[in-house]
Amino acid sequence: MGVAAQVLKAMESSSAIRKAFEDGLQLKKQYGEKNVYDFSLGNPDLEPPEEVENIIKKIASSGEKGAHAYMPNAGYMETRAAMAEKVSSEQGVKVGADGVVMAVGAAGALNVIFKAILEPGDEVIVPAPFFAEYTHYCANHGGKLVPVSTKDDFSLDLDAIAAALSTKTAAVLINSPNNPTGKIYSENDIKALAALLEEHAKKGRKPYIIADEPYRAITYGGKKVSALFPFYDAAIVASSFAKNLSLPGERIGYLAINPACPDKDELFAACVFATRVLGYVNAPAFFQKVVAQAWKVPVDYSSYSERRDALTGVLKKAGIEFAEPEGAFYLFCKVPARKTDGCTDENLFCDYLKEYRVLAVPGTGFGKKAWFRLAYCVSKDTITNSLDSFVQAAKNW
Amino acid sequence: MGVAAQVLKAMESSSAIRKAFEDGLQLKKQYGEKNVYDFSLGNPDLEPPEEVENIIKKIASSGEKGAHAYMPNAGYMETRAAMAEKVSSEQGVKVGADGVVMAVGAAGALNVIFKAILEPGDEVIVPAPFFAEYTHYCANHGGKLVPVSTKDDFSLDLDAIAAALSTKTAAVLINSPNNPTGKIYSENDIKALAALLEEHAKKGRKPYIIADEPYRAITYGGKKVSALFPFYDAAIVASSFAKNLSLPGERIGYLAINPACPDKDELFAACVFATRVLGYVNAPAFFQKVVAQAWKVPVDYSSYSERRDALTGVLKKAGIEFAEPEGAFYLFCKVPARKTDGCTDENLFCDYLKEYRVLAVPGTGFGKKAWFRLAYCVSKDTITNSLDSFVQAAKNW
Repeated sequence: MGVAAQVLKAMESSSAIRKAFEDGLQLKKQYGEKNVYDFSLGNPDLEPPEEVENIIKKIASSGEKGAHAYMPNAGYMETRAAMAEKVSSEQGVKVGADGVVMAVGAAGALNVIFKAILEPGDEVIVPAPFFAEYTHYCANHGGKLVPVSTKDDFSLDLDAIAAALSTKTAAVLINSPNNPTGKIYSENDIKALAALLEEHAKKGRKPYIIADEPYRAITYGGKKVSALFPFYDAAIVASSFAKNLSLPGERIGYLAINPACPDKDELFAACVFATRVLGYVNAPAFFQKVVAQAWKVPVDYSSYSERRDALTGVLKKAGIEFAEPEGAFYLFCKVPARKTDGCTDENLFCDYLKEYRVLAVPGTGFGKKAWFRLAYCVSKDTITNSLDSFVQAAKNW
Repeated sequence: MGVAAQVLKAMESSSAIRKAFEDGLQLKKQYGEKNVYDFSLGNPDLEPPEEVENIIKKIASSGEKGAHAYMPNAGYMETRAAMAEKVSSEQGVKVGADGVVMAVGAAGALNVIFKAILEPGDEVIVPAPFFAEYTHYCANHGGKLVPVSTKDDFSLDLDAIAAALSTKTAAVLINSPNNPTGKIYSENDIKALAALLEEHAKKGRKPYIIADEPYRAITYGGKKVSALFPFYDAAIVASSFAKNLSLPGERIGYLAINPACPDKDELFAACVFATRVLGYVNAPAFFQKVVAQAWKVPVDYSSYSERRDALTGVLKKAGIEFAEPEGAFYLFCKVPARKTDGCTDENLFCDYLKEYRVLAVPGTGFGKKAWFRLAYCVSKDTITNSLDSFVQAAKNW
C-alpha cells in the first residue's frame, strides 16, 4: 500500500496552473466570483459556436444504432477522413485518413506519441518557455524533457537546439502559437529547424518533430502558423478542439503523421496500440461524430483580440512588461523588480497577487523564471475590473 | 526516428481480441455481415436504454453555459456524488464523493491507479484467466502482471495467491464477474483473500485489492457480486458504463477508494494527478453529465440470459465443453482434442474456426491455453445461425 515515490515527488513540484485554479475556487467562495480576477487556466470562456451546439443536438437525436459502441481504436473512418482534410489544408500536403488517430485531447495525443516512440532514457527537446505538463507526458513513458532557451523575442534559438541534440534525442517538440508566450515560430525558423535536424540525422538518429497545435486557429493581425510537413518528413501534428471550438472538457483531439514519414505505417500502428493500452481505447464516440461535422464551422476569435488589447492596456497602465502575443490567449509577463530589493521571484509575486485577488501562474512551471502567465480567455469585465488590482499590486510591490 | 523497441515487442504479442475484431471486418466484407459469426469483442449489441437516450437529448439541449469547459480533474462534483451513491449501495459502506475520481472508462481508471501506486518493478497479482490488456496496463507504469492459477471451477486459489505474494506485490487485481470465464468470486473467497493479505501485510507491505467491476450489474440466476470494502480497507473499485449501459465508445468510468483505506487522501490526490498527467485530464464532460442521471436507470439484461442459453445450447450440440457463466457475457470454452493427434492448440483452433466464419479469441491472451472465448453480446440470430458452423467445425477438427 502507498503511492509510488516518483508520483509523490512529481506531485510536489507539480502544476502551478492547477494549483492556481484550485486556489481560485477558494478565493471565489470567499470574495464572490466577480471580485476575483482569475487568469490562471486556459479554459476558454467563449461558448462553442451555435452551429456546434446544433450539431450536438442533431447527433443526440439521430437515433443511430450502435452510436455509443466501440469502433476501431483509431476512431471512426469518417472522423479521421475529416481530420485528414483539415490537416491537409493546414499543412499544404495531402494527408490521408490512414495517417490520423483520434485522441483524448491533444494531451492524450502527446502521451500516445511518446508511448509509441520513447525508449527508456530518450530525450525530447522543447524550446522554453513551454507548457508545464510536457515534463510529465515524457516522464510517463520513460523519457526526459530537455528544455532549451529561446531568443529574447521567444523565437527559436537554433544554436541552443543544436547544442542539446544527441543520439538520445527522440524528438523536438514545438508548440506554436506557444503557451505561455503566444509566439508563432516563423516559417523560416521551421525550415531552419528542419535543416538542422536533417544534418544531425546524418550522425545516425533522426529525431521526429512533434507540433502541438491546439492554438493554430487563434492568431492575431492575420498571422499564419507555418506548415511543417512540407519541410520535414518525420513529423507529427497533435491537436484538439479544446481551444478553437471551446470543447476542452470533452477530450477530443487527434494526431496526424506526415505521409512522407519513412516509418509512417509502423508509427501509425504503434500510436493505435498506445491508444488502446494506455486505456483511452478510443476518443469519445459522441464528440468524434461532432467534430467530423464541426471542424469547418467558422469561429469569431475577435473577442480574444479585444481582450488581448484590453489586458495589455491594463498592464501598460500598471507598468508591467509583457511579450506581445501573436496567437493563443496567454500573456507572458515579466515580474517587476521589487522596490525594496529588486526581487523578481515569480512564485513570491504570484502569491502576492492573490492579495489583490489576481490569479496568475508563475513562469517556473513553464521553464522561465522571473516571468508569469496570464490567460485572457476570461470575460472582458474580469479584465477591465482587474485594472485597479494590477495598478495597486505593481505600485506596492 | 522509429517506434520504441518495447512497443514493437508488445505489439507483436498483442491483443488477439482486437486482431479477431479486425479479421472480422475483413470476413464480413467478403461474406456479408450476416454470414459471419463474430464472437470476438465485448462490444454490447444492446442499445442503451431509451431513458438514457432521452437523458442524452436533454443534456444536448440544455443550453447550459460552460457545459464543455474544463472542470476539476476528478470530475464534476455532482457526478462524483452520484457515483459515490452507486458504490455505497454496492459495497454496503458509505463512500463519499471525495473518494471518487471520474475516469476515461475502466481501462482509464486502471491505468490511473497503476500510475499512482506502482514503483518500478512492482508486481500485480491477477487470478488467471484474466482480461489480456491488464498486462499492458501494468507494464505502462513500470509494473509487472503476475498471473496465478485459479481452481478448476475458476474460483480463487488462495494457495496460488499466497505463493505469489512478496514485498514486490503492490496489488491483487480481481475481476468479478470475470472476463473471460463469467465466474463470480464468492463472498467467502473475497473474505479469505482479505484475510490472506492482512496476514501477509504483517511482513511489511500491504497490497491493495483492486476490483475491476464493469460487469457487476450483469449476472444470471439472481447471483450477486460480493462487496469488498467491508472486508478489506486498502481497496479500490474501478468500473464504467461500457457494459451495463452499453456506452463503451463514450469512455466513461470511475474509480472509488474505500473510505477506510489508511492512505485514502494521498491515494486520491495521486489518482487525480495521474488523471491529469496521463493526458486524460478529465473524463469526457458530456457523458459525466449523462451518467450522473443515468446510473439508476433500470436495464433489462434478460436478453443476455437468453443468448447465454442459446449459445450454450449450440455448443452442447457441437459437443464443445465450456464453463457455465454466472455473469458478464462471455463463454469460456475448451478447445476440443483434434481427432488425428489430440491437439488442443487454441490459436490453431481459432484460426480453423475462421474457415467456418466463426470468430473467437484464443485463451492464450487470457493466460489460459487450450481454451477460447466467445462473447455473446451479439444478436440472437448470430448465435442461432452459427449452429451449423460449430457442429461442422467440431466434427471436422
